[in-house]
Amino acid sequence: MKNIIFTSLFILFFLNTINAQLKSPDNNFSLTFSLLDEGIPSYSLTYKNKVIIKPSKLGLELKNDNQSLLNNFNVIDSVTSTFDETWEPVWGEVAKIRNHYNELAITLIQKGTDRKMIVRFRLFNDGLGFRYEFPTQNNLVYFTIKEEKTQFAMTGDHTAYWIAGDYDTQEYDYTTSKLSEIQGLMQKAVTGNASQTAFSLTGVQTSLMMKTDDNLYINLHEAALIDYACMHLNLDDEHMVFESWLTPNANGDKGQMQAPCKTPWRTIIVSDDARDILASKMTLNLNDPCKIDDTSWIKPVKYIGVWWEMITGKSSWSYTNEFPSIQLGVTDYTKAKPNGTHAATTEHVKTYIDFAAEHGFDGVLVEGWNQGWEDWFGHAKDYVFDFVTPYPDFDVKAVHNYAKSKGVKMIMHHETSGAIRNYERHLDKAFQFMKDHGYDAVKTGYVGNIVPVGEYHYSQWTNNHYQYVLEKAADYQIMINGHEAVRPTGICRTYPNLIGNESARGTEYQAFGGSKPNHVTVLPFTRLIGGPMDYTPGIFEMDISKLNPNNQSHVNSTIANQLALYVTMYSPLQMAADLPEHYNKFSDAFQFIKEVALDWDDSKYLEAEPGEYITVARKAKGSNNWFVGNVNGVIPRETSITLDFLEKGKKYEATIYADARDAHFYDNPQAYTINKMTVTNKSKIKQISAPGGGFAISLIEK
Amino acid sequence: MKNIIFTSLFILFFLNTINAQLKSPDNNFSLTFSLLDEGIPSYSLTYKNKVIIKPSKLGLELKNDNQSLLNNFNVIDSVTSTFDETWEPVWGEVAKIRNHYNELAITLIQKGTDRKMIVRFRLFNDGLGFRYEFPTQNNLVYFTIKEEKTQFAMTGDHTAYWIAGDYDTQEYDYTTSKLSEIQGLMQKAVTGNASQTAFSLTGVQTSLMMKTDDNLYINLHEAALIDYACMHLNLDDEHMVFESWLTPNANGDKGQMQAPCKTPWRTIIVSDDARDILASKMTLNLNDPCKIDDTSWIKPVKYIGVWWEMITGKSSWSYTNEFPSIQLGVTDYTKAKPNGTHAATTEHVKTYIDFAAEHGFDGVLVEGWNQGWEDWFGHAKDYVFDFVTPYPDFDVKAVHNYAKSKGVKMIMHHETSGAIRNYERHLDKAFQFMKDHGYDAVKTGYVGNIVPVGEYHYSQWTNNHYQYVLEKAADYQIMINGHEAVRPTGICRTYPNLIGNESARGTEYQAFGGSKPNHVTVLPFTRLIGGPMDYTPGIFEMDISKLNPNNQSHVNSTIANQLALYVTMYSPLQMAADLPEHYNKFSDAFQFIKEVALDWDDSKYLEAEPGEYITVARKAKGSNNWFVGNVNGVIPRETSITLDFLEKGKKYEATIYADARDAHFYDNPQAYTINKMTVTNKSKIKQISAPGGGFAISLIEK
Repeated sequence: MKNIIFTSLFILFFLNTINAQLKSPDNNFSLTFSLLDEGIPSYSLTYKNKVIIKPSKLGLELKNDNQSLLNNFNVIDSVTSTFDETWEPVWGEVAKIRNHYNELAITLIQKGTDRKMIVRFRLFNDGLGFRYEFPTQNNLVYFTIKEEKTQFAMTGDHTAYWIAGDYDTQEYDYTTSKLSEIQGLMQKAVTGNASQTAFSLTGVQTSLMMKTDDNLYINLHEAALIDYACMHLNLDDEHMVFESWLTPNANGDKGQMQAPCKTPWRTIIVSDDARDILASKMTLNLNDPCKIDDTSWIKPVKYIGVWWEMITGKSSWSYTNEFPSIQLGVTDYTKAKPNGTHAATTEHVKTYIDFAAEHGFDGVLVEGWNQGWEDWFGHAKDYVFDFVTPYPDFDVKAVHNYAKSKGVKMIMHHETSGAIRNYERHLDKAFQFMKDHGYDAVKTGYVGNIVPVGEYHYSQWTNNHYQYVLEKAADYQIMINGHEAVRPTGICRTYPNLIGNESARGTEYQAFGGSKPNHVTVLPFTRLIGGPMDYTPGIFEMDISKLNPNNQSHVNSTIANQLALYVTMYSPLQMAADLPEHYNKFSDAFQFIKEVALDWDDSKYLEAEPGEYITVARKAKGSNNWFVGNVNGVIPRETSITLDFLEKGKKYEATIYADARDAHFYDNPQAYTINKMTVTNKSKIKQISAPGGGFAISLIEK
Repeated sequence: MKNIIFTSLFILFFLNTINAQLKSPDNNFSLTFSLLDEGIPSYSLTYKNKVIIKPSKLGLELKNDNQSLLNNFNVIDSVTSTFDETWEPVWGEVAKIRNHYNELAITLIQKGTDRKMIVRFRLFNDGLGFRYEFPTQNNLVYFTIKEEKTQFAMTGDHTAYWIAGDYDTQEYDYTTSKLSEIQGLMQKAVTGNASQTAFSLTGVQTSLMMKTDDNLYINLHEAALIDYACMHLNLDDEHMVFESWLTPNANGDKGQMQAPCKTPWRTIIVSDDARDILASKMTLNLNDPCKIDDTSWIKPVKYIGVWWEMITGKSSWSYTNEFPSIQLGVTDYTKAKPNGTHAATTEHVKTYIDFAAEHGFDGVLVEGWNQGWEDWFGHAKDYVFDFVTPYPDFDVKAVHNYAKSKGVKMIMHHETSGAIRNYERHLDKAFQFMKDHGYDAVKTGYVGNIVPVGEYHYSQWTNNHYQYVLEKAADYQIMINGHEAVRPTGICRTYPNLIGNESARGTEYQAFGGSKPNHVTVLPFTRLIGGPMDYTPGIFEMDISKLNPNNQSHVNSTIANQLALYVTMYSPLQMAADLPEHYNKFSDAFQFIKEVALDWDDSKYLEAEPGEYITVARKAKGSNNWFVGNVNGVIPRETSITLDFLEKGKKYEATIYADARDAHFYDNPQAYTINKMTVTNKSKIKQISAPGGGFAISLIEK
C-alpha cells in the first residue's frame, strides 16, 4: 500500500539571493546551495553539524559552445517540497521501502544566454541526491557535454576503499588507502583485463566508499544512470576535491544532450554507523517507480551452471581446436574434430539438470552452447555469435524437454564479446528463441573491447544499449543478468527484470589468480549500493589445481565464508557456482545453500565495517525463518549477536555453519563446523570467524 | 542461357621467378605481375601496346603488427584460367551480359612470417580487375589494416574529371583539370555539405575518369565493396602515382579483417573510345551472381513524389514550427499548431496519386510523412525517427487504400539522419509496416553525420550497415533506393533489389544553387560505373524562385536535356521530379517521360565524350521500340546519327524532343521543339543541342 504525502512550497528569490537551505526529514542533514562569485553554483552538506561536503562547484562544460554552463548564473526560482511514500519492491531486502525526502529545486538562469538549468536536491535521512535538469527552452536545445564539473570537496584525507577509474572494466580488487595515497598506488591497482582504459592517476570509480578520521562513513555514487555517460571521480589530491569525470564516446565527447533532459542523480550517502550505508535505499528511491505493469513473471532464481569448470580451465567453452578462426555460417562444425573438453554437451548438461532437480535449484545456466567460442574476443570481431545456433553436441530441444520434465528452467547465455550492433541485430530472434525453448532469464556478457572500436563500455551510447536490451527483454518477459555491463544505479526499481549484474570483480577472479580475502567485506559498501551482483558464490574446493593442474589459483575464502555470501551479498539471483561433485563431497555444508532464501521481508545489518566484517540477518519472504551471514576480513574476529529480531515467544532451530577453530582462507579453507541448537529472541550467539572466513546461520521456526 | 567455359592452368614458379603475364581475351590488354627488389609485389598494364599503368606497388600496411603485407614476398604459385559465361540481369541496359576474362592468381608467401596473400587479376576486353585475398592460415588470422597501399602509377599528367575525396559526402560538382592542377583547385572543389570530411589536397573519389593526351580513356573504381572500407585515391602529383586511401573508422583504422577474406576488386577500365567506358559491364561482372532466388517481385519503377516542393522550399517536411526540438513518443503533435506548409498531408498526397494514375506512373514517393522532421539532422541525435508513426495529417491507411484503388504503389521514405543503430533497431518493424501498407520500395537517407559520432559514411562499419539493410530488405521483398549511402560498386548484380542509389550530386542541387551544366555528361563516366543513380530528372520549371520567392536557384538545364536524362542516365528507377502543375503546363514534352521505357534489351552508345556529350539509343525490354537520348555540355553541338540499330525493313514513328534553336540552359531553358516523322534503319538524324541541352527521341514501331 502506498502512502503518499506531497506538499509543495514556492518561494521566489530575488536575483541577489544567493543562499538556500534544506534539511533532511530528521534534521540530521543540512544542504546549502549558494552562488559564488561570478555566478558559479555551489553546494555544501553537513551531517549532525559536521561538514561532509565543503562548498563545491556545480556545472557542465560544453563543447563548441560560446558559453558553458559553469557560471554567470542567477537564481530565478526556488521550490521546496516534501515527499513521503512507501512502496513495495518486486523483490528485495525488505518488503516495503520508504521514500521520504525534502526537496529543493533551484532554477538558474544564465546571464547573456538566458539559458535555464535546474539543480534538484533531494535530502533523505540517509543522504543527498542531486541532479541537473534542462527544461525545454529556446536557447539550449541540443548540446554536447565536454565534461561535467560537479565537485565533491572532502574535508580531509579520508580513508577510501577504491578501484581505479576505467572506461572499460570494473573488475579490479579494492585498495584501502588514504586519499593522498591513491596516486602512488594507482599503478599497482590497475591489473590486467580483457578490455581496460584507465584515464588518470587519481581517477576512481563509484560507488566510492570512504571513512573519515572522526568515523563518518561517506559513499559517493550515482542513481538512475539513463541516457548519460557513467561518472567516475577524479581527485585533486592537493585540495581533496573530487570532480566528476564522465566516460567519453569515440570522439572524446562526454554527452549528447537534447532538452528537455536531465543527468543521473549524484548521490552522497552518509552516516556515523557503517550499517546505515548498507541499509540505505536512497539509490533505489531516486529511480523511477516500476514501469513494467505485470511483474508476475519476475522471480528470484537460485541456479547452478556449466560454468566453473570452464572458468577454472578444466573444460572449454569451445567445441574444437581445429580452426584458426571461426566465421559463423561459413565454418562447418559438423566436419570439425571435437576437442574433447567442450562442457556444454547434451549429456553433460543433463547431469547438471539432474543435480538441480535433486537439490531444488530453479535453473541451470549453460555457457559455451552456441557456435563461435573458438575465437570469441580480442579481435574487434563484429559477427562473433548469432545466439541461436548450437554446437553439434548440444541439442537445445532435447535439453529443454529434459529440463522441463524435471521441473528445472534453463538459463540462457548471450556473450556478445562487446559487439553491440551485432547483438542488437540478433536480439529479437535471440529472445524469441529463448521463449520458444523455455528460457526466461539470460546472462549477457560484454567481454573485450566494444565494437564499433573507439566506443567504451560505459559511454552514453553503450549505456543506451544496455538499457535497450533491458527494456526489450521486459517486452519478452525475460530477466537480465548483465555481465561486464555498466555498474548498476538502482535501475532495477524501474525495471525489476534486471535481476543481476556483474559489474565488479566476481568469484571468477578466484580462479584467475585470486582476490583479496576481504573483497566481500567491501563489495556491499561499493558495488552493491547500485543493485544486486551475480557474484556466483558457493565455491567449496579452494585449490583450483585439483580441477586443472595448469591453474595454480587459490580461492581466498573459507567454506563458511562462501555460505555466508548468500546472505551478505544480497541478490535475488544466486548461483551455486562449484561443481556438483564438490557439493556431493560436502553435502552437509551444501544444505545451507539449498535452504537459504532469495527474497526477503526484512533485513537487519547487525555489524559492519568496510574491509573488515559484515553481519546481516534476513527474514525470508512470507515466512518466519531467518538467515544470518557473516563475512570476515583478514583479522580473526569474534561476533556477539543477540537474536532479538526473532519473533517473541517462538522457538527456532538454529543451524550454525562456521569456521573451525583452525580455519584460514589460505591454509585451511575447508575446515568448518555445523552445530544445531534451539534458540529464541532472547538467545545470544558468540561465533568466531577465521581470516577470510565467516559463518552462516539458518533459523527455522519450530 | 549460360555458356560457361572454364579451363585452368597451373604453373609452379621458382622462387626467383619474378614475372608473370596475362593477356585479355582479345589480346588488347597485357598485365604484368612482378616482384620488385625486397620482394615487393607490383603490376603494370598496357592497352594496345601503350602503357596504362606503370609498375605500381601492391600491398597493405597493418596496424600493431611486426610485419606489414608490403614486402619480403616470394611467389609460390601462379594459376591462370579462362572464364566465359553469359548471364541475364534482372534489370539492366542489356538483356544479356557476357562475363569473359582471363585470370591470373598469384600466391605470395612472406619470408619470415609464412603469411600467404593471393593477388587475383581478371583481365577483360574492357579492363582489369584485381583484388587481394587472404586464405585460411595460421599466421594471419585477424588483422587491422592501417592503410591499403595499392598504387596506380599514371604515365603522365592526364585530364581528370574528379570530385574531392571525402569520408562523408559524394555530392560535389565535378572539376575537369590536369592531375597536376588538382591540388590548386581542391579548396574550390570542396563545397558545403551537411556532413563532410575531406582528408587530402590531392585526394579524389572513385570512380575517377581520366583522359590521356593521346586520347586514351581510363577509369579507376572498385567492384564488390563488401565488408571493407570505401577506397579513395590520393595522388602523388610529383610522380603522378595514385595510391589507395581507405575510409577510416572512429579509431582511424581502415579495416578489421579476418581470414579467409578478400578486398573489393580494384578496377581499371580502359579504351581509346569513350563509348566503351559507358558500355563496360566489367564492374557488374566482378560481383557475385544474384543471391536472391525469387526475383519476380523486383520491378523497375517510374515514379513521382511529394519531394521537389520541399527541396525548393515551397513546402516543408515538418508539420509544425512550434517546438524547439522533438522527442519521439514525448512530443505531442496533436497539440501542435500545424505550420501550414507541411506537404505530406493525406489530401495533398491524393492529388499526386491522381496524377500518377492518370499518367501511368508506378509509384508515388512521399517524404515528410512521419514524425520527427522538425529537427532531423545536425545534432548527432540518435532517436530521430521511428519509421512507423505518421504526422496527424497523414493517414497511412487511407492513402494506401486510395492508391490501391487507383492502381498506384506508394513508395516509402526512411530518412535515418545517419543514426545507424536507431535505424537497425527499427528495421524489422519498419519493413513490416511497409508490407502491411502495400509499400514494396523504400528510399533510404543518411543526411548528416553518422551516429555513433566518430564513424564516417563510407567506413567498413557503416558500409556493413548498408549491406545489412539491403539483405534484410530482400528478406522482406523490398526494393532499396539508398541516398547518401556509399557509392555503388555493382552490388546490384548480387542483390538486384538495390534498384537505385544517390551517392552523387543529384538534381536536388539544382535547387540548392545549381550544378554545372555539363554535370550529366560526366556522371555516366563516374558515378554510374558502379550502378544506377536515382538522379530525379524531369524538372521543367528552371526558375526556382517561381516556386519559392526566397530561393534564387536556377536549374542549369534545358527541358530537352531533362527529357534526355531518362535515357542517358540509365536507371530502373526513374522519377519525374517536378510538380504536376509544371507537367500539365508542358504536357507535350511530358509525353516523353510517360512513354520512355525503364528496362532494356539493348543499349548502343552512339557518341560520348566526358564533360561534353553523350548520345545513347536503347531498345525497350520485350519491344521493338527504341529511345534515344543526348545530353550536351556547354558548347552548342550538332549530332549526326544513323538509326541503323533499328530493325531492318520496319517503319518507326520518331518523335524528336529537341532544344529550340535559341535554347540555352540559363537564358532560355524552356524552349523546345517536338517533331514527328517516319524513319527506318537507313534514316539519318541531324540534331542540334544547346548549351546544357540535348534531345530525346522515341522510336515507336509502326
